[in-house]
Amino acid sequence: MIMKLLILNGPNLNLLGTREPDVYGSKTFEEFLAKLRRDFPQVELDYSQSNEEGVIVTSLQEADGVYSGVVLNAAAYTHTSIAIADAIAAISVPVIEVHISNVFAREEFRWHSVIAPYCMGSISGFGLQSYSLAVRAFIHCNSIEQ
Amino acid sequence: MIMKLLILNGPNLNLLGTREPDVYGSKTFEEFLAKLRRDFPQVELDYSQSNEEGVIVTSLQEADGVYSGVVLNAAAYTHTSIAIADAIAAISVPVIEVHISNVFAREEFRWHSVIAPYCMGSISGFGLQSYSLAVRAFIHCNSIEQ
Amino acid sequence: MIMKLLILNGPNLNLLGTREPDVYGSKTFEEFLAKLRRDFPQVELDYSQSNEEGVIVTSLQEADGVYSGVVLNAAAYTHTSIAIADAIAAISVPVIEVHISNVFAREEFRWHSVIAPYCMGSISGFGLQSYSLAVRAFIHCNSIEQ
Amino acid sequence: MIMKLLILNGPNLNLLGTREPDVYGSKTFEEFLAKLRRDFPQVELDYSQSNEEGVIVTSLQEADGVYSGVVLNAAAYTHTSIAIADAIAAISVPVIEVHISNVFAREEFRWHSVIAPYCMGSISGFGLQSYSLAVRAFIHCNSIEQ
Amino acid sequence: MIMKLLILNGPNLNLLGTREPDVYGSKTFEEFLAKLRRDFPQVELDYSQSNEEGVIVTSLQEADGVYSGVVLNAAAYTHTSIAIADAIAAISVPVIEVHISNVFAREEFRWHSVIAPYCMGSISGFGLQSYSLAVRAFIHCNSIEQ
Amino acid sequence: MIMKLLILNGPNLNLLGTREPDVYGSKTFEEFLAKLRRDFPQVELDYSQSNEEGVIVTSLQEADGVYSGVVLNAAAYTHTSIAIADAIAAISVPVIEVHISNVFAREEFRWHSVIAPYCMGSISGFGLQSYSLAVRAFIHCNSIEQ
Amino acid sequence: MIMKLLILNGPNLNLLGTREPDVYGSKTFEEFLAKLRRDFPQVELDYSQSNEEGVIVTSLQEADGVYSGVVLNAAAYTHTSIAIADAIAAISVPVIEVHISNVFAREEFRWHSVIAPYCMGSISGFGLQSYSLAVRAFIHCNSIEQ
Amino acid sequence: MIMKLLILNGPNLNLLGTREPDVYGSKTFEEFLAKLRRDFPQVELDYSQSNEEGVIVTSLQEADGVYSGVVLNAAAYTHTSIAIADAIAAISVPVIEVHISNVFAREEFRWHSVIAPYCMGSISGFGLQSYSLAVRAFIHCNSIEQ
Amino acid sequence: MIMKLLILNGPNLNLLGTREPDVYGSKTFEEFLAKLRRDFPQVELDYSQSNEEGVIVTSLQEADGVYSGVVLNAAAYTHTSIAIADAIAAISVPVIEVHISNVFAREEFRWHSVIAPYCMGSISGFGLQSYSLAVRAFIHCNSIEQ
Amino acid sequence: MIMKLLILNGPNLNLLGTREPDVYGSKTFEEFLAKLRRDFPQVELDYSQSNEEGVIVTSLQEADGVYSGVVLNAAAYTHTSIAIADAIAAISVPVIEVHISNVFAREEFRWHSVIAPYCMGSISGFGLQSYSLAVRAFIHCNSIEQ
Amino acid sequence: MIMKLLILNGPNLNLLGTREPDVYGSKTFEEFLAKLRRDFPQVELDYSQSNEEGVIVTSLQEADGVYSGVVLNAAAYTHTSIAIADAIAAISVPVIEVHISNVFAREEFRWHSVIAPYCMGSISGFGLQSYSLAVRAFIHCNSIEQ
Amino acid sequence: MIMKLLILNGPNLNLLGTREPDVYGSKTFEEFLAKLRRDFPQVELDYSQSNEEGVIVTSLQEADGVYSGVVLNAAAYTHTSIAIADAIAAISVPVIEVHISNVFAREEFRWHSVIAPYCMGSISGFGLQSYSLAVRAFIHCNSIEQ
Repeated sequence: MIMKLLILNGPNLNLLGTREPDVYGSKTFEEFLAKLRRDFPQVELDYSQSNEEGVIVTSLQEADGVYSGVVLNAAAYTHTSIAIADAIAAISVPVIEVHISNVFAREEFRWHSVIAPYCMGSISGFGLQSYSLAVRAFIHCNSIEQ
Repeated sequence: MIMKLLILNGPNLNLLGTREPDVYGSKTFEEFLAKLRRDFPQVELDYSQSNEEGVIVTSLQEADGVYSGVVLNAAAYTHTSIAIADAIAAISVPVIEVHISNVFAREEFRWHSVIAPYCMGSISGFGLQSYSLAVRAFIHCNSIEQ
Repeated sequence: MIMKLLILNGPNLNLLGTREPDVYGSKTFEEFLAKLRRDFPQVELDYSQSNEEGVIVTSLQEADGVYSGVVLNAAAYTHTSIAIADAIAAISVPVIEVHISNVFAREEFRWHSVIAPYCMGSISGFGLQSYSLAVRAFIHCNSIEQ
Repeated sequence: MIMKLLILNGPNLNLLGTREPDVYGSKTFEEFLAKLRRDFPQVELDYSQSNEEGVIVTSLQEADGVYSGVVLNAAAYTHTSIAIADAIAAISVPVIEVHISNVFAREEFRWHSVIAPYCMGSISGFGLQSYSLAVRAFIHCNSIEQ
Repeated sequence: MIMKLLILNGPNLNLLGTREPDVYGSKTFEEFLAKLRRDFPQVELDYSQSNEEGVIVTSLQEADGVYSGVVLNAAAYTHTSIAIADAIAAISVPVIEVHISNVFAREEFRWHSVIAPYCMGSISGFGLQSYSLAVRAFIHCNSIEQ
Repeated sequence: MIMKLLILNGPNLNLLGTREPDVYGSKTFEEFLAKLRRDFPQVELDYSQSNEEGVIVTSLQEADGVYSGVVLNAAAYTHTSIAIADAIAAISVPVIEVHISNVFAREEFRWHSVIAPYCMGSISGFGLQSYSLAVRAFIHCNSIEQ
Repeated sequence: MIMKLLILNGPNLNLLGTREPDVYGSKTFEEFLAKLRRDFPQVELDYSQSNEEGVIVTSLQEADGVYSGVVLNAAAYTHTSIAIADAIAAISVPVIEVHISNVFAREEFRWHSVIAPYCMGSISGFGLQSYSLAVRAFIHCNSIEQ
Repeated sequence: MIMKLLILNGPNLNLLGTREPDVYGSKTFEEFLAKLRRDFPQVELDYSQSNEEGVIVTSLQEADGVYSGVVLNAAAYTHTSIAIADAIAAISVPVIEVHISNVFAREEFRWHSVIAPYCMGSISGFGLQSYSLAVRAFIHCNSIEQ
Repeated sequence: MIMKLLILNGPNLNLLGTREPDVYGSKTFEEFLAKLRRDFPQVELDYSQSNEEGVIVTSLQEADGVYSGVVLNAAAYTHTSIAIADAIAAISVPVIEVHISNVFAREEFRWHSVIAPYCMGSISGFGLQSYSLAVRAFIHCNSIEQ
Repeated sequence: MIMKLLILNGPNLNLLGTREPDVYGSKTFEEFLAKLRRDFPQVELDYSQSNEEGVIVTSLQEADGVYSGVVLNAAAYTHTSIAIADAIAAISVPVIEVHISNVFAREEFRWHSVIAPYCMGSISGFGLQSYSLAVRAFIHCNSIEQ
Repeated sequence: MIMKLLILNGPNLNLLGTREPDVYGSKTFEEFLAKLRRDFPQVELDYSQSNEEGVIVTSLQEADGVYSGVVLNAAAYTHTSIAIADAIAAISVPVIEVHISNVFAREEFRWHSVIAPYCMGSISGFGLQSYSLAVRAFIHCNSIEQ
Repeated sequence: MIMKLLILNGPNLNLLGTREPDVYGSKTFEEFLAKLRRDFPQVELDYSQSNEEGVIVTSLQEADGVYSGVVLNAAAYTHTSIAIADAIAAISVPVIEVHISNVFAREEFRWHSVIAPYCMGSISGFGLQSYSLAVRAFIHCNSIEQ
């Protein structure tokens, strides 16, 4: 059976490819997503982005029972959203936190993640490859469990 | 004249009955609400839930002049939302803060409520009964004023 | 069988009705207690007040096995007394923390309660009605357990 | 060519004229906006308000390439929203932060602005005139650049 | 009519004259009190000492309506007792805070006084003369009021 | 009757035009002042600069009753001078705080202004135009009051 | 000559054997004391317990000149009582601080001891044996001095 | 031989009688000084005031060897001036710190005195009488030493 | 040409498979390393472990110019070692930080990494798979560069 | 069967007898060790000292399964070494923390022990006797278990 | 060409030789300056001292273009003066910070220097020789540049 | 008799000349040492470097009685090593702390030196010349003592 994963992006990540390209690169997320699907044909990859904290909370709730895992880049909400953290704790689908840039090399308010304690693991600093590594981590777990 | 109250629930409280039942119990809020209405036939109880901070702000604004009181469980936003606090301060309808669990016995970031100073009072730790006590507090105030 | 509750008041609460009436109201606690007993004929309500931290500790210890619940307004000791917190943790009778005023709307040193994590729940800001709500919470629990 | 500016207001500012009139005045923002347009006939002034953080993020993103400047009163989100700060950093249209009241003379949690470092400048404390001064600042910059 | 003042000493001050004489001098408080009464024949000076926080609270409560002023050296409780602070705020008799040593030249935990904001004034560092100056301050106020 | 305003500059602002021109621009304050006077012929603009905290205190005191407003750039003293803050609080002439650079985008010790709570309002980040906007704010207030 | 020691226990330690037996064991202190006296026949061991901070202060004062040492378990007051710390500093009899549990492995507010700097030494984490070790330490010191 | 004392006032105290009369009273310091000289004919009282930190440092240095004591109200510099603290430590003439208002009942930044540890003692909260009490304290010390 | 990577483990990681198996699993690192080499035949994997901070510093220095990348699990030194951070900054070979457990879900002192800002990226929480993901990240980068 | 204990000393403790004799005494640790072995003939006492954090980590690891207990004076590493704390947590042999001086009466950075939470108990302030008390504690535990 | 250096001393350093000689030595700065000039005949050494922060700011501004270097002992202002720090940043002449005593071995508020980040280097703890070393550092730099 | 000094370098300083040359210069320490020996023929200069904290502790211990002074650049350990600080305090040979870069102009965690309070003095920011100045300081002290 095919594994279904949800990639969930937070605020301003819809600007990828245009926003601060020296930090985030010049590829749009849609372009990257196409490549990701080619790289992992054995996985069904859904994608969603929202600038709104509450919508991300709802997306996480609705992922429960539907997906085998969520790859979450909560962007700015990473550092402040107890609501998203509570949603991750409330659902049973595992969540992997990813960041494009190395958040620990940026401003001090980006060092602390409110959601990390509730995630399965965290991957940051590898550019868009952070998402690939997260998908691979889910595949690996899946193969072990079966 | 019948007293109208609004019960307003914040993020992830739509999961009540399914989420961490050892912390929040296994009854859905809708089941509880039915019982609450039976217990207080003299009160008209409206109910609203949202995962979005801004929607809660709007609900509070719209409650002004319509309800005699708001029973608010802001959940995760309790600890971070100045916007909700400002909304409570801006409206003239009194708001009672409730929490299902004893927030002071949980993680340290749940000890401080940004909204409490603007509420009429706070009730926490009595499970769903926290809502009943809040309704009763409004009934009591109402009977005094008349 | 009748339920026995202990109402335990901390420092300066013997001045109720005289001290800062704009904050605490002009009714003495004894007047209020008489009304409380009338309102709850099914409950035996004992009352004790002390200005001394150690005496409150002892009262809590002695309440164990005698009362079904303690309604505790520890006043100033709420914010500093680890000894009272330890006493609450050490006994098996449940304790509800009450406050007359909304402590979260006062000086910052009144925002944190050292004893709250060990109590069953907390009620603050409803004037003397805070005690009534606490008594009602105990009655509710009692009816469930039986 | 006419200069287009966006005035963007955050949570609870839709209550202007009704909310705490001693702090914010008794004029609605719509009344003020009409006067502002009369005062600056050489500028096209669009206006938007939202109680939701994510909607403000989206409005800022959509302002890029459309307006010559944004006058932003993020209200409560000023002090907490990294998402709005990131949006300002991501777009190339300059943003001026305005506040109606002198935020530095209010509660301590209003002293720090998360978004200020990413804005062109900040104006606070002049009542609704803060907006006028911001518009004038944009006109001044515009005349220099041409 | 003669003015009645209460001198109220806190924990360990009963050891004066024996405890750390290089800090507190070698005269007992009783010897000093006799001299103080001789120096101020126009004032009736009562004296009380207790090692217990709650007893000091009670003494302050009972001073209300009986004395024209209280000279309070709360010693160690100066830095921690919200209960004593509340008692001072609750009574109408003015209280002057005194300290024998210069508390600001000692350990950092002695720099902050919890009770000072509720006192009429503070005098510290003059040895036992601190008490004389406090008595004189009350005489001065008294002569002005009449 | 013509409106008289005092522009008061603090330490190192006499170096404007020479000091860190990439931060502060290459125009001297005297050159700018000439332009400012031309732009606002209806206002009498006096100017004073001092590197000494106490001299600024004295200038503020002497402005009382003489000027309709003070435009104050306290520079480094903005962040540390309680003496200047006390002077602003003591006089009845309104003071507007201005900064040339966006202080919130610089070192963290420049984020907090000790004097802001006592000023009418604050304007920062608009280069020398910050002064123009402050003058305009005074003109606006003046026209309203008359 | 026989050595006299005072064992002084603070709040809630009268509950030993009943309170949280998984933390403090199931033996009452009186049972333990009998064993301690049998183990150290060469020492006269007096025992006192109080829930009141002020009574412990007085006990320490009265121990001066009577005992060769005090074994003090100040329990909750360990972390807050400057009054007890001052009493230890004021008397010449040496005091050893003991704790039954390893306080450093419990809640953070139990990590810091206000009284430790004034004690001869500290022993914690050995259950009731902590008292035995303290007695032995006094015996050792005594044998050296003679 | 007559005792010479210097009364040294810091920034904004030249405004006494005009500045915030509800806080500081409506009497000018010169009027008060005349009364003070009448009250203490046995003392020669010199007076100096400056808004400048450095001038106060110099006045303290020059007081050495000339005066028997300095009564210092450093006003705003109380809370920030290490330079004045160093001057007090460097001279051998004793300094008494006085404050007109009860600084502990005002803003938190006024609670800490940088200079207090180096002063002989502190007196605050008695209005202008604070100065009288300080003079009296010097007279008392003087009479003891002779 | 084959890619050479160094896996560098810090203190106590030699105990893997024996130490706290519920946290770290029951496989020794040597067993895992054999599997890792089988999974990545195209990579030459060297391995080194040390309990000593300085030895890790030296290993990093010696890796420069020899390896294409270092997979570093600095364990306890992650949170304190500026020396290791300086070594990473000083060498030109990229370093990926890995952790077996989710460090953000453990004690607060494990939340902050001193070395993360100098690493290419961080991967934590995937058990021993964290190392596999790091190796894969290096392979990916390598393939891009060529 | 004889009980084997390891005494493990940290940095600079090889200087005992020469370093700051007023703090640590003038006896070398070797002299003390000889006496300790005479005092406890029923115990085999091995001894090791190192100035290196990593060597102490290794010694603790190697003690596992060999000794019945470790008496550890980690000296300076007490306050900073998470690596040593992790080693103690990882091994099953119990560790008692000892200090020669009363660390709580020294500089503030010596008040907190990073390793204490993982130790069986702590003994400090008894000079070299601290080691004797620790040995005795192990003997006591041993006799109970058998 | 001869090198010109300015030695600039801050508050209370005019008391050198008289103030706390155990800390600062008994030689006046003038005596030391004469020796310094003899030791460095190839350098023209000017000297200035002020107790006023603003005068030091002005001296630094005026040193620009006149001297090859400034040896600055800002004394108490070292720890608080952003104005002096700004002046150093604004001028192009290099400044070396010197301190007579080892500031790091004194009170904690002397550990942090506000001006150090803007200086070329810092020398502290060598008594008056700190100035000699600073002069020598300037000579060394000068010889390199030529 | 010739003076013997030890130059002791901490972690990563063996990379000098290769590591971040824009910060530390491009000369290796060995090249610099040769020049230093030529510049000070009257001094015997030994040199040692280690990446290990414990080895530096041992080197300091062994320097006692052998050298007249130690020039110590503890590099990263400057900010964290209580062990090195204790070693400096334990030995009688004076130690001068040097840094190549101006540590106060770098990251905040480099501002505080744990070892500075125990050193004779500190020199930082003069590149490799910092070592020369330290040697000169020792020569100067030596000539005074003889």
